Amino acid sequence: MRIVVDAMGSDGHPGPDVAGAVLAAREFGDTIILVGDQARIEAELAGQDITKLSLEVRHAAQAVNMTDKPSVVVKSKPDSSMHVGLSLVKSGEADAFVSAGNTGAVLGIAMLRQVGLGRIPGVKRPALGVMFPTRERPFLVDNGANADCRPEYMPQFGLMGSLYMEQVVGIRNPRVALVSNGEEEGKGNMLIKEALPLLQASGLNFIGNIEPKEFMRGAADVALTDGFTGNIMMKTAEAIASYMSDLIRDELMANPLTAVGGLLAKSAFGRVRRLLDPHEVGGAPLLGVNGVVIIGHGRSNAYAIKQAVGQARQMVAHNIVMAITTGVANSKLAE
Amino acid sequence: MRIVVDAMGSDGHPGPDVAGAVLAAREFGDTIILVGDQARIEAELAGQDITKLSLEVRHAAQAVNMTDKPSVVVKSKPDSSMHVGLSLVKSGEADAFVSAGNTGAVLGIAMLRQVGLGRIPGVKRPALGVMFPTRERPFLVDNGANADCRPEYMPQFGLMGSLYMEQVVGIRNPRVALVSNGEEEGKGNMLIKEALPLLQASGLNFIGNIEPKEFMRGAADVALTDGFTGNIMMKTAEAIASYMSDLIRDELMANPLTAVGGLLAKSAFGRVRRLLDPHEVGGAPLLGVNGVVIIGHGRSNAYAIKQAVGQARQMVAHNIVMAITTGVANSKLAE
Repeated sequence: MRIVVDAMGSDGHPGPDVAGAVLAAREFGDTIILVGDQARIEAELAGQDITKLSLEVRHAAQAVNMTDKPSVVVKSKPDSSMHVGLSLVKSGEADAFVSAGNTGAVLGIAMLRQVGLGRIPGVKRPALGVMFPTRERPFLVDNGANADCRPEYMPQFGLMGSLYMEQVVGIRNPRVALVSNGEEEGKGNMLIKEALPLLQASGLNFIGNIEPKEFMRGAADVALTDGFTGNIMMKTAEAIASYMSDLIRDELMANPLTAVGGLLAKSAFGRVRRLLDPHEVGGAPLLGVNGVVIIGHGRSNAYAIKQAVGQARQMVAHNIVMAITTGVANSKLAE
Repeated sequence: MRIVVDAMGSDGHPGPDVAGAVLAAREFGDTIILVGDQARIEAELAGQDITKLSLEVRHAAQAVNMTDKPSVVVKSKPDSSMHVGLSLVKSGEADAFVSAGNTGAVLGIAMLRQVGLGRIPGVKRPALGVMFPTRERPFLVDNGANADCRPEYMPQFGLMGSLYMEQVVGIRNPRVALVSNGEEEGKGNMLIKEALPLLQASGLNFIGNIEPKEFMRGAADVALTDGFTGNIMMKTAEAIASYMSDLIRDELMANPLTAVGGLLAKSAFGRVRRLLDPHEVGGAPLLGVNGVVIIGHGRSNAYAIKQAVGQARQMVAHNIVMAITTGVANSKLAE
């Protein structure tokens, strides 16, 4: 397998991105193609033991920043590492693209017909899926590709999410739900109320509305939401988990007895932290584009990049693009 | 002061509601009017020491359930404890109404022109405010009164939230922000993008977009959102906090050493739990109706009911209804 890693993606690029690519090449034995500023990539590689690894470097003269406006950079930075990397997938020189960079920019460039991948025929809108970092690892779609959604997107998000969970994660007949502020029919905003009958008629294993509490405890395998709400949900969950960790640390340190307790309990806290760590789950697959694309967290470290590559490999191995292509073509949900 | 407590509100009614009313009468010395099934209220009071307390009971023949559809019960249960309780505020026999019951029903009944309070003149939509249960206690508006919002509601939510924070909580010149999936201008869904210029022109102390992480750490005093997103945010935060507590307990118990650590650290965990406990913050003020209304958490215990009464007292004492009436009349934000 040949997997592209955007060396200019993460907040701390190119360090974590290059180190993650090296970890991935070593663990998976695949060819990793690092795309970005050649000199900076090679400087990072110089500090690594890369004997016997299959690593290639492809120069890209530009890099997209987190603050770049996606609609602008799509055109203004035609030589960005994202453009170059995605075009390798388009041309068949690579099987997948992994970036921890600007989500909107990856989306926009992936959708370009010339260098990018474009949509799978019949897909109304590509969507970002994300594994929620609780023990049950439920899958949330959309996590931010579409800030505003129409009700008819939801059944397709459900189909793509179901295929991902079935093909890549191995869950049979995944349960699909709509995220809402109450479980009863009739709860929710206009989007949820209008999407509900569409999902009931979709042929998916739709189980109705679900509240955040039930979602994160695994009452559904795939939960659907517009990209704005989904993104706010993920960010709230991450923020509260980190807030609570800080608070516990502060309170433990406030007195010697609890500080000793905290020390003895350290391994338990470590397990909790690792379980809830967004770095563990890899990245967010961009579903509905005509190729395998994973968008990692901006704060990705090398381990997170490696996990995202592992996830991309699974998507390639289980041919998720073909599964979605066939699934959409055979469903009544196509455009 | 005379404050109505809906005895039929909480999930466990009338126990917590009556016990909370007794706590409030004792702590604040006010008259508490318990409204609901007289026999059941008196049975609860029989188990309490209520000598020297000013408690009244007003019978209401019907009770609203959590599963009742608000649009239906507004008309189908005209003798509910909510109808009776709110009409006491309307007629001037009481100063405020506190209920831990069905939020939609309280809203709907409060808006009735005959028995309810109706809107303050010029208010486009009443909104639920809620103190976010982090140490900084920022205020979120709307927490679920309006699942679908128009951009022009946001400046009024900001005005009402600012007046609440200024008058009731005592924060000078409160900072107002829009909750979004990114801080940069241009981030957000259509609602946020269209609300931004309206807020910039509103005369409020508007500081721009804010992400959940910054919000919960107190970067703004008042954060604005539509009621659907706000409710999902609050529910996600509560769910993650409770999920993490359970996880920590499980992991501590998994081995004897960490279990001893957990025991020694118990007081620290207790402080964290209390700090993040939604019961501490009281309830959600319904801003924009022509009277003081607090809606408590369905899972309220007696302490939470007492806290909600305390919050209602503050709103009466600082005449928040008059402040909003004047504020809206003097602003360019009226209908």
